[in-house]
Amino acid sequence: MEVNKKLNIILIIVEKEIYKIEYSLSNAAFSATLSDFRSAANKVSGDVISTPCLPFKSATRIINLKAECLQPLGSFKIRAAANAIESADKNLLQDGIITASAGNFGQGIAQAGKNRGLPVHVFVPNTASHVKLDSLINLGATIEKISFENWWQIMITRSTGRKGFFIHPFSELSVILGNGGIGLEIFSQIPNVDTIIVPVGGGGMISGIALAMKALKKKNVRIIACEIESSTPLFSAKKAGKPIKVERGASWIDGIGSTGVLEEMWPLLDQLVDEVVVVSHSDAEIALRELALKSHLVSEGAGAVALAAALNPKFTGANVVSVISGGNIDITTYSQIINGTNL
Amino acid sequence: MEVNKKLNIILIIVEKEIYKIEYSLSNAAFSATLSDFRSAANKVSGDVISTPCLPFKSATRIINLKAECLQPLGSFKIRAAANAIESADKNLLQDGIITASAGNFGQGIAQAGKNRGLPVHVFVPNTASHVKLDSLINLGATIEKISFENWWQIMITRSTGRKGFFIHPFSELSVILGNGGIGLEIFSQIPNVDTIIVPVGGGGMISGIALAMKALKKKNVRIIACEIESSTPLFSAKKAGKPIKVERGASWIDGIGSTGVLEEMWPLLDQLVDEVVVVSHSDAEIALRELALKSHLVSEGAGAVALAAALNPKFTGANVVSVISGGNIDITTYSQIINGTNL
Repeated sequence: MEVNKKLNIILIIVEKEIYKIEYSLSNAAFSATLSDFRSAANKVSGDVISTPCLPFKSATRIINLKAECLQPLGSFKIRAAANAIESADKNLLQDGIITASAGNFGQGIAQAGKNRGLPVHVFVPNTASHVKLDSLINLGATIEKISFENWWQIMITRSTGRKGFFIHPFSELSVILGNGGIGLEIFSQIPNVDTIIVPVGGGGMISGIALAMKALKKKNVRIIACEIESSTPLFSAKKAGKPIKVERGASWIDGIGSTGVLEEMWPLLDQLVDEVVVVSHSDAEIALRELALKSHLVSEGAGAVALAAALNPKFTGANVVSVISGGNIDITTYSQIINGTNL
Repeated sequence: MEVNKKLNIILIIVEKEIYKIEYSLSNAAFSATLSDFRSAANKVSGDVISTPCLPFKSATRIINLKAECLQPLGSFKIRAAANAIESADKNLLQDGIITASAGNFGQGIAQAGKNRGLPVHVFVPNTASHVKLDSLINLGATIEKISFENWWQIMITRSTGRKGFFIHPFSELSVILGNGGIGLEIFSQIPNVDTIIVPVGGGGMISGIALAMKALKKKNVRIIACEIESSTPLFSAKKAGKPIKVERGASWIDGIGSTGVLEEMWPLLDQLVDEVVVVSHSDAEIALRELALKSHLVSEGAGAVALAAALNPKFTGANVVSVISGGNIDITTYSQIINGTNL
């Protein structure tokens, strides 16, 4: 990894192809090789599990579910969180760690910080689910609830007015490398995969998976993002050719869907994501129920969106892996949906 | 494997120790080695997955959950069912396969039979859950609903009056060998395990796991059975020193709990099971909810009983693996329990 502090952007070079992040604070260029992704995966091997890829029966396509909801704390975010802390300069961590998260990444940082004796403070949007906030508090983190708009400002500015080492939940090199571990595992489990479907919030997971597939020289694997109909920042950005502000409608699904793609992530998502599939709430609810009844997984909304997208007619004949990103969902909402009470 | 048709019992010889089954129909003696268990596991590798052992957070003991609910069809039974068909004389299968099952084993036989183009007929007790019966029909099996008493008679006599090759759901060598695969995987995943907790219905799973641990020369691993308070045939047999008839109270938990240990299985269970833990319905309901909230697994009642048993004070300090045997549960009952509506 080569770091050049003089650049005002990050150039991620994988297999001689250059992927750009217009970064607001950090300034670096690095070339990531397969061994960088493997090294990140090794660093966090004590924090995470290698999740199974579970076959999901379909008559018209092959679907496997990468069950990240089975990770400790019920989310893929532990991979990136642990790698971000492991990769940080130890001197910078002495005032503790700060992050902004709707919950899952905050939990990962809280757990990884706790494991290393570091205090963690998490800014959360007031839309975050109770189960995620309770979990943060149980992990010993302090939390600060702010409006979604102010919370999103922190995502953009990285400025919180608080002392401590700030770790961005997705626009962070160590986060992207940590998430790449999902891609390495998918390839080893389903070598013939041709389509990977990933729910997109900030874009850190899909970027990590896509870059890992590049490092593996699997250029023919389609990288598909999925979003819920009530908030389609990436779909809209792809259509407009640039990030635009979108409505953020009411939804029982959290963790994905914002009011716009972060400017600094756009060049990466523009280059790495082949297509965006938008899923309806009714299809997401059916998928949540199927995940319970057929796969025996408790998924959060974002994971259900990834299965619903895999069932889209456009993937007939494909060999799909859908990433079931997490399993932290309000239990009352969940039990109503799987019982069909609100269908 | 050595078969002696003249014996009226089965002697299973593992690591020079002899385990006896007083068998009603089949007559055999065989010595099973580690390679027999491995061979059975290999035979079914196309039908089953190697399920993960998921850490379950506890302050007082190590608990890992062997998530057999993630198997195709949501139950460990596919292991034994596929091995039973694979091990049968092909000429005997031409009239199809018959089994008696509360659902999970029947599903396994139906799936494995379907994969091989063989018709399957399943006798089911009228206590079996709708979700299990629907699944059998969807897999192309024919079903015949009979009283629990008549169904249990088939278990004892192996006589159905119907043409076809009968496969017993637990008192069957191929079933026991197939289930042994769970033990092999547990040992490779958690080499320091000292306590394995298994929900007991007929006893085929716990026998397979226990014998596999013997074949692995892991004699210090405690083999713990668990039962639900409304029906405790093995606990009662252990106390009485022989199988006795017990009450079978109402319960939302199916798949475990009968009116008595099958005579032919008693010598095996007597020798192999170190202790039986009886779990209350309220503890099972809490465990079912914890499996959803913390482990993101949809478990059936028997799996919840295995986690509840692991949380018993007597296992403080232990390194426990609990087998979450399956995930097929009526969705209305399930959603009510995880939502706390019926707690």
